[in-house]
Amino acid sequence: MSDEQTATRGKAARPPLTAVSQMPWSIPRLIDRPVDPLDPEGVARLDAGVMRILADIGVDLQNGDAALALRRAGCRVTGTTVRFDPAFVAEKLALVPRSFTITPRNPARAIPVGDGHLLFGCVSSAPNAWDLERGKRSGDRAAFREMLALAQHFNCIHFLGGYPVEPADVPAASRHSECMAEMLTRTDKVCHAYSLNAAQAEDAMEMVRLAAGLSPGEFAAAPRMFTNINSLSPLRYEGAVLDAAMRFARQGQPVIVTPFAVAGATAPVTLAGAVALALAEGLAVITLLQVIQPGCPVMLGGLSPSADLKTGAPVYGTPEYIRATQMTGQMARHYGLPLRGSAPSNAPVPDGQSMAETSNAVWAALQAGSAMIYHAAGWLESGLMASPEKFLMDCEMLQGIQRYCDAGLLATDPTALALDLLRDVGAGGHFFGTRQTQDRVGSVPRPFLSELRPYEAWHQDGAVWSSERAHRLYPRLLEECIAPPMADAARGALEEFVADRRQAAGIPVDA
Amino acid sequence: MSDEQTATRGKAARPPLTAVSQMPWSIPRLIDRPVDPLDPEGVARLDAGVMRILADIGVDLQNGDAALALRRAGCRVTGTTVRFDPAFVAEKLALVPRSFTITPRNPARAIPVGDGHLLFGCVSSAPNAWDLERGKRSGDRAAFREMLALAQHFNCIHFLGGYPVEPADVPAASRHSECMAEMLTRTDKVCHAYSLNAAQAEDAMEMVRLAAGLSPGEFAAAPRMFTNINSLSPLRYEGAVLDAAMRFARQGQPVIVTPFAVAGATAPVTLAGAVALALAEGLAVITLLQVIQPGCPVMLGGLSPSADLKTGAPVYGTPEYIRATQMTGQMARHYGLPLRGSAPSNAPVPDGQSMAETSNAVWAALQAGSAMIYHAAGWLESGLMASPEKFLMDCEMLQGIQRYCDAGLLATDPTALALDLLRDVGAGGHFFGTRQTQDRVGSVPRPFLSELRPYEAWHQDGAVWSSERAHRLYPRLLEECIAPPMADAARGALEEFVADRRQAAGIPVDA
Repeated sequence: MSDEQTATRGKAARPPLTAVSQMPWSIPRLIDRPVDPLDPEGVARLDAGVMRILADIGVDLQNGDAALALRRAGCRVTGTTVRFDPAFVAEKLALVPRSFTITPRNPARAIPVGDGHLLFGCVSSAPNAWDLERGKRSGDRAAFREMLALAQHFNCIHFLGGYPVEPADVPAASRHSECMAEMLTRTDKVCHAYSLNAAQAEDAMEMVRLAAGLSPGEFAAAPRMFTNINSLSPLRYEGAVLDAAMRFARQGQPVIVTPFAVAGATAPVTLAGAVALALAEGLAVITLLQVIQPGCPVMLGGLSPSADLKTGAPVYGTPEYIRATQMTGQMARHYGLPLRGSAPSNAPVPDGQSMAETSNAVWAALQAGSAMIYHAAGWLESGLMASPEKFLMDCEMLQGIQRYCDAGLLATDPTALALDLLRDVGAGGHFFGTRQTQDRVGSVPRPFLSELRPYEAWHQDGAVWSSERAHRLYPRLLEECIAPPMADAARGALEEFVADRRQAAGIPVDA
Repeated sequence: MSDEQTATRGKAARPPLTAVSQMPWSIPRLIDRPVDPLDPEGVARLDAGVMRILADIGVDLQNGDAALALRRAGCRVTGTTVRFDPAFVAEKLALVPRSFTITPRNPARAIPVGDGHLLFGCVSSAPNAWDLERGKRSGDRAAFREMLALAQHFNCIHFLGGYPVEPADVPAASRHSECMAEMLTRTDKVCHAYSLNAAQAEDAMEMVRLAAGLSPGEFAAAPRMFTNINSLSPLRYEGAVLDAAMRFARQGQPVIVTPFAVAGATAPVTLAGAVALALAEGLAVITLLQVIQPGCPVMLGGLSPSADLKTGAPVYGTPEYIRATQMTGQMARHYGLPLRGSAPSNAPVPDGQSMAETSNAVWAALQAGSAMIYHAAGWLESGLMASPEKFLMDCEMLQGIQRYCDAGLLATDPTALALDLLRDVGAGGHFFGTRQTQDRVGSVPRPFLSELRPYEAWHQDGAVWSSERAHRLYPRLLEECIAPPMADAARGALEEFVADRRQAAGIPVDA
């Protein structure tokens, strides 16, 4: 790994690519009021439904430690099925912090979660890669690294979720440590770690600690990373996943609990039924974590597909998806929980359909009051593929949303109203040449991918569609991508850690 | 014309195309609260700016009758520049109806404007046509008819704006009557008529009256059509346009006043400056119309592009566009005016860029509280081209928005919560086979254009992207399109009217 890194570091002196004008790294803050699709009676009914699920039906938490902890806390436990008293749930929800900050190895990349801030993450956990030239193929290390480089490069990407694409060519036995090391080395942004089992969770925390050069105490003193877990809807969680989640919680590392309730498949086909189920599943584990580690940072995850009633497959970005997302957000506010939204789509290629679906999903996430938006760049085919072209097309949209959040657009002071200028220019005049207009040139980044010229100019340049423009641009961007600096000690510690894990797995260290 | 119409009517017996599942004709109603980007102080400042423009700078209404009417009403008039007292404007704005209904020749297609209803219209006034096979070309009668057929076919299109595409091959001298006849014959939806001059306005009203078989008194008793006028920003209106608009108003026909203030070109580059200018321009003519015909139906039009600071060309769907649209909507509510929104985009082809931009614009129009959304289907290249492929892709989105408006999605009654079903299915179970899910199959229209299948199924079917799918589908749709029935007397009267206008223009009647 070190040879490549040296090479990458050697590039640091090259000038940045001028073709892509980016907004600087910043944390947008959305001032828009979230959309509340339910009236107060609807909220009360949905809440009553959630509480009935928790109290009467129960959630199967297939983990002995979890069940024991909840039994000791007064819950009714039958096998691993736990039933929760609503007052008990309310008491635990009251412990959840409304906002918190996650600080990665580069403190300048710290992300504030909650309090109106808006954070975008790249596509996560796609098993396949896709690009315009090669089409669909199994994910590999090269594709994984490309996506990491893009995620690091774009300032509108604030964090990394799971592996952007699964590198199937990395030995499974040591993949978690190798991938974690790549993420921590090739980016300096907040990283997610999987909660698949206890050992991997402990390894991930140790690696984040090493990468940041923290003592164990320093590490546990504040959020440094996060994990995300999914339910096995309906009403079930895998035991090993809960084990890992509890370990993160004990170390004060944020846990996002994202039920995967597909309306009409793993959940009732009605939105209220699907959302009530998802909320009950989410609240069950959030309650568990507050029992394990009172006050630990948690989020509710919103991912609300419906089943295509012809095939049963989950579909995204539909009207049902938007409303279910908004309902989830409204209930998250009701319960005082920060929300993680998503930006998925169904389309197999980065075409008009894909962008229409992603746009709907992004707006739904904004309307739901999401603090973090997962899968915001690069997702295709219902999450089965990660694509660099789609990544760039999404980043164009995300930069727009980020600029949309700029409160300066809404200024109404005398300079913004420009009445004196209007009087000077007068009826039939023009503002393009005025100082006020010309002063703006260059201060607002132009879209880097969108075609704004007349048709004829575009046609003369080869009539290149947006997906193809993205396809031509991303290799140039990859050439220019600069790995973030990293202390040699931290780098060495990570390399040693990975070597150790490879050795333990019987994999030659120099492979 | 009559031969073709007979042929079209002969098709009425054929079964509808099963490939496109449509929602039935209905008028959606949006329950979401509009987005208010400005705080009360911002509203007050913007209002004060608008009133200063109207009172101190004035608007050049280049029409003697208009200037005279306003002078008599107490306004200060210098040449054709009119300055308005804020109290006078407020008094006239109070006369504007908050909502009204426009009834076309088929009363079943009446559209309620305002009161939360949401109406979509097709692309208007594109000089060129584009399709995937032929590329860009000057608009012609064939393209004009194709767009009319699609606009009639899709239930999510509630009204027609201006000519969807300009038929340059129709003689200019009689184009207005020929096109109006085609619109009134080939569709039974509410039609727009241009306000280019007095004669054309009078002709259009007469033709709408004839098409509906109304007496002059019946025609003027209620809105039957509408017009839309644009300003010559900054601060000017063409005299002939005002003449036409006043004629529509006197006959009780709705007038949409849409300033075309391009931030950084025909308006200040700042959003507050551009919106204040647009509002002042809009209020000036709305005030005029309320003087001419107190209580006549009017709307404020919102179309808020910014200039690309590299080229000066208007661009749409940007963050600036969204915020300016929302600001305009908030101020329209402040002034008690129904709002017309728009759904434009910049892209030269129906690719990912085009759908991302259109989606942003549609959401902006919804967030602004628009009663009507113009240009909602088929617009490309900043309005310079109309495309059937884009039309279908947009209709897919509009059907989704229409379904999004279905309050049934938000039901929280016991059936929707489905707690008993959840208990029965239990942890680890599945809902796809349940009666509640299966009862939904077929009741919700599936997307007609979107690809929801796995990548492999899509790839095996030829790997067709959404624009190409739309390209293959629209000719099949055109074959199936059914012209609406029309009384022979009305048809004859229209034909006679057009023949008369052609004769007057020296064009052979059998051309």
